[in-house]
Amino acid sequence: MCPSAPLGRGPKVRSAVLAATIDELSERGYAAFTIENVAHRTGVHKTTVYRRWPDREALIADALAESVAAEIPIPDAGSVDEDLRALARSVVAWTNSPSGRAVLAVMVSTTAGLPAPPNSARHVFRDRIRQTLPVVTRAVDRGELPDGTDPAELIKTVVAPIYFRVLITGEQVDEGTADAAAAVALTAARARLFT
Amino acid sequence: MCPSAPLGRGPKVRSAVLAATIDELSERGYAAFTIENVAHRTGVHKTTVYRRWPDREALIADALAESVAAEIPIPDAGSVDEDLRALARSVVAWTNSPSGRAVLAVMVSTTAGLPAPPNSARHVFRDRIRQTLPVVTRAVDRGELPDGTDPAELIKTVVAPIYFRVLITGEQVDEGTADAAAAVALTAARARLFT
Repeated sequence: MCPSAPLGRGPKVRSAVLAATIDELSERGYAAFTIENVAHRTGVHKTTVYRRWPDREALIADALAESVAAEIPIPDAGSVDEDLRALARSVVAWTNSPSGRAVLAVMVSTTAGLPAPPNSARHVFRDRIRQTLPVVTRAVDRGELPDGTDPAELIKTVVAPIYFRVLITGEQVDEGTADAAAAVALTAARARLFT
Repeated sequence: MCPSAPLGRGPKVRSAVLAATIDELSERGYAAFTIENVAHRTGVHKTTVYRRWPDREALIADALAESVAAEIPIPDAGSVDEDLRALARSVVAWTNSPSGRAVLAVMVSTTAGLPAPPNSARHVFRDRIRQTLPVVTRAVDRGELPDGTDPAELIKTVVAPIYFRVLITGEQVDEGTADAAAAVALTAARARLFT
């Protein structure tokens, strides 16, 4: 309640609060998450947080989106092979990071029978998949993939084997996992399985 | 504590207890799960349960394995196309069922930051994947797939897109999802991506 190092307004506060949100989720989990703890950790008054985010669900959804956007960038290397590998490798690195683990914990809360923001967490992933679609449409434009390739189906095929191992089999994932997943998706796309 | 319809010993008790375990997980979740509740639901004394399963982790692991084995049978139709589609369709039907949801809730407990049986849940899936490998080795023997195809990689590629949609994007999965996932995996296998 007594910020030791007061922050100004503006984007600096926003990014500090969002980073503190991920840290709180990472250390205490979703169930114990409170805006008060985030404010304390950021060194601002809780009304400063409430001014921007009406409730913890809104704050968490924003923090999740920010983490995903920062750590799973949208590749544009000029070749679909490279782009899909880069995308898969980012997903691997992120799922192995504390912030990735924190976001995944929120994502699976509903499945685990915990109270969870009803749709905001899943919207984060759907939105990111949508933002990533140009990777595929650019490849179609360059003639690297068949006309009419469904970009969302292709992107989901790239990332699914990574999440499956992290969430279900509990296997370690690495760049080899990423490259293999990208190769499978690309082969299927070239065989017109997504058209 | 006072069983209203006492059960005899033997396999009948075992399967009744395992079914009650899945029902308890489905209705109350992993956190609230107790052997006492299972015994009460089955209509046996809790010592009857403890005689076979030393603790709730052992009981849950056994119930999960039983659910997976019963509801995701190992297909053997004589053709790899049919077998992979049948496998994927079973997984889809199971993830849409109350028992599938209950098992998945346990599976993701660790990721969700809940206390969970450390490895038993994940072993259930690894074991089932291992039991399913003959689907692939038989196809290799019949000359339907390249020599040296890694059966586990192929099976994981078949099922990953289904779990990804259920757990991450929250999309409905159906037979179309199953058939598409099987086709992608088969195309990749024939292109020697799993050798």
